[in-house]
Amino acid sequence: MRLFLLNNLKFLDGGGKGFHQIRSLSSSNSVLLSTNDDGNRGIRRLILNNPKKRNALSLNMLQELNKQFDTMEKQCIHPIQQQQPKSNHQSTTDDSKTLLRAIVISSNSEKIFSSGHDLKELKLNNDPKYHQLIFDECTRLMLRLRSIPVPVICQVDGLAAAAGCQLVASCDIVLATERSQFSTPGASVGLFCSTPGIAVARTVNRRWASYMLLTGRAINANEAFISGLVTCVSPTFETMQTQTESILESIITKPASVIALGKQFMYKQMEMNNLADAYSQGSRIMVDNLSMKDCQEGIDAFLQKRQPNWTHSNE
Amino acid sequence: MRLFLLNNLKFLDGGGKGFHQIRSLSSSNSVLLSTNDDGNRGIRRLILNNPKKRNALSLNMLQELNKQFDTMEKQCIHPIQQQQPKSNHQSTTDDSKTLLRAIVISSNSEKIFSSGHDLKELKLNNDPKYHQLIFDECTRLMLRLRSIPVPVICQVDGLAAAAGCQLVASCDIVLATERSQFSTPGASVGLFCSTPGIAVARTVNRRWASYMLLTGRAINANEAFISGLVTCVSPTFETMQTQTESILESIITKPASVIALGKQFMYKQMEMNNLADAYSQGSRIMVDNLSMKDCQEGIDAFLQKRQPNWTHSNE
Amino acid sequence: MRLFLLNNLKFLDGGGKGFHQIRSLSSSNSVLLSTNDDGNRGIRRLILNNPKKRNALSLNMLQELNKQFDTMEKQCIHPIQQQQPKSNHQSTTDDSKTLLRAIVISSNSEKIFSSGHDLKELKLNNDPKYHQLIFDECTRLMLRLRSIPVPVICQVDGLAAAAGCQLVASCDIVLATERSQFSTPGASVGLFCSTPGIAVARTVNRRWASYMLLTGRAINANEAFISGLVTCVSPTFETMQTQTESILESIITKPASVIALGKQFMYKQMEMNNLADAYSQGSRIMVDNLSMKDCQEGIDAFLQKRQPNWTHSNE
Repeated sequence: MRLFLLNNLKFLDGGGKGFHQIRSLSSSNSVLLSTNDDGNRGIRRLILNNPKKRNALSLNMLQELNKQFDTMEKQCIHPIQQQQPKSNHQSTTDDSKTLLRAIVISSNSEKIFSSGHDLKELKLNNDPKYHQLIFDECTRLMLRLRSIPVPVICQVDGLAAAAGCQLVASCDIVLATERSQFSTPGASVGLFCSTPGIAVARTVNRRWASYMLLTGRAINANEAFISGLVTCVSPTFETMQTQTESILESIITKPASVIALGKQFMYKQMEMNNLADAYSQGSRIMVDNLSMKDCQEGIDAFLQKRQPNWTHSNE
Repeated sequence: MRLFLLNNLKFLDGGGKGFHQIRSLSSSNSVLLSTNDDGNRGIRRLILNNPKKRNALSLNMLQELNKQFDTMEKQCIHPIQQQQPKSNHQSTTDDSKTLLRAIVISSNSEKIFSSGHDLKELKLNNDPKYHQLIFDECTRLMLRLRSIPVPVICQVDGLAAAAGCQLVASCDIVLATERSQFSTPGASVGLFCSTPGIAVARTVNRRWASYMLLTGRAINANEAFISGLVTCVSPTFETMQTQTESILESIITKPASVIALGKQFMYKQMEMNNLADAYSQGSRIMVDNLSMKDCQEGIDAFLQKRQPNWTHSNE
Repeated sequence: MRLFLLNNLKFLDGGGKGFHQIRSLSSSNSVLLSTNDDGNRGIRRLILNNPKKRNALSLNMLQELNKQFDTMEKQCIHPIQQQQPKSNHQSTTDDSKTLLRAIVISSNSEKIFSSGHDLKELKLNNDPKYHQLIFDECTRLMLRLRSIPVPVICQVDGLAAAAGCQLVASCDIVLATERSQFSTPGASVGLFCSTPGIAVARTVNRRWASYMLLTGRAINANEAFISGLVTCVSPTFETMQTQTESILESIITKPASVIALGKQFMYKQMEMNNLADAYSQGSRIMVDNLSMKDCQEGIDAFLQKRQPNWTHSNE
């Protein structure tokens, strides 16, 4: 049903290939579907595909997600590190492939986005080392949602609970349907949502974070909007899809290297307390950005009222 | 009138005992009423009870509040400090008493929650040492609202001004009636709300904080909701009471030791700038949490679809 | 048209002098208009006045703004630095002039508040040193919006984009009309809004910041209200003007030295991670504040139910 909807929207449209592609993936046993949009636009869609297990972030699911990110990172243009001379920069991008421009994470269920860690799994193997392994895998995923140099968009439809809510709060851009809910109810089973709380408290206002974490009660989409967890609430999945398409269009029409540079510094400065320090570093980033080919082209095109012709490179 | 309302709600219901208990306390001259709920559920209600002085946080009121917290801290289960071996842990809980599970702070007036520091008192004794004593007592209260290992719920009905607003912003969970107002108007009497601003700026969005502090103008309940100061606005005191009861139910059905561990780390990680560091510590907390008896019981009960049987201990 | 509106409101009213004053300024070629309110109330209005260039923050505009702030800083009472003995304090205020109490920044256009940096200018001179100069001038402005010891109010009517949005997010109090929009679209021309993002991410919830910065899409006034960028949305410029007048009234009826002390510490504590440290410093500020003449007068007046008689000094 959901896959059919996806097919009818521009995002995965392209002579029905998108539909069949997902369907065939769907017939596999993978807990995670992964597909490119048909238009060769560099948009990768990851679909949590284990509705019977409420799309739990099991070790398997986390590893599959991280595997996808391993691959996707190689398909991105990465920002040049400051202090590193340009000439020494080795692009990790294989030019023969489409450059990755954006990632969309959603679920293959209209009831559940993800229920978080797999409690059964945590119980079956009671070795603390095994537990640590799971949380390390989870942390690795959350940190790279931030470090991967393309925007990560999350489409929530249904319930996002515990580490599922952490995943949502860790994406760059979050949309949700009206029927969606968000919760961090771990304490109800004796496992406080301490790590989900790290992502949630950095996203929503602090009173919402303490309310959610201490009571475990779910908030609805409107409360998620008020609290800052979500910036767009759509009445249906279809309208969310249309909204997402507009957002993707905004992203892919910009130069990849500039988005990469921008995302990296954005999260860096957010962690800086001192305003003057942040501006000092930010100004240098701006000056460097201005020397990039795509910036010179972008401003030229703007002044000449024409479409820019991006290289998407760090030159 | 208010006390009568309280009596008619489940929270203090129990054959009318709650009503009489508060009434008898009320007939005392104490500026602060303190009562347990009748159901032996470990819920302590503190009621600011000096409406003639607009429930000012006088030195007396602050000391009474801190005295209550001294007692309540002994009735809580405290989280085991990391690095401290479990066997050495001395529980401070006297097992013969009901374990404290939650604190509810409200006022005995539908017009004023609290007007903040007592200006008359600050004026009568002009010794800076005396002033310092008052602010130290106030800080002690604000810090322990955060450190006490049970959730503190604030019910605002009426005006919360200056240090009264600071008290609100320092609680874990804040509800308010529609008629409530919030302000930090100290500069109007020449005393800028510098310490209230510390709590307010950590709770609401920064533009709301600077607006409130620099103009002293009151915001209404809806603005408090938008700004993040309050997460639930109720049309009447009765509906706020019902909402509070649901929240309390959510809290007391969870294991006390897990809430204690969770609240402690929640505020700790909120003060950490570096995301990777926060996750590193958070993962260890999760692994420790998983080894607790109540966590194992909680997950078992969940998987077996039965009610959990908590020990509420740190074992 | 806009100037006519301003004239018809109390803010610039005074026998039409305000109107003519601005008009005559307007006939000058200055990109920035500056006017005092007629009532000698110490309110300075700065009007971005280059609508043909979309009120761009060109080097010229930035320098004009900084020149105004150089002058205005000398018209303020400054807080006494802690650790600095009172007797050594040299007031920078020339007593013969009206003490500055508040600054209002607006634009002379109902379509555009400011479009941010002047792209043409950035392109014409491609010397990185020149670019650095522009960003340094911009940073200097943003930092002093925070450091100048009087409240800075921003009235947005129309689009605030890129560094224009940064200017908005850097003011203490922000009002906007319903038709206003806010964006950080730099990446569309290849120049990521890295420095605007510093101000925006410290003002709005983090998900709004990443959404705005990575997509460049504009948010409307309602979204700006939800996100925390704006605390008051008015249907028309006239109602925004009335709202501003109320806010100004709230400010100028308070003692200047207390506002100065308060604003300085407010931003200082916002940058402090540790709550106990913030309270420790805050308590000392409160004790110092209580020893000020205007505080003693303010509390006296309050207790005696009369109007206070401020000295506006640091005594």
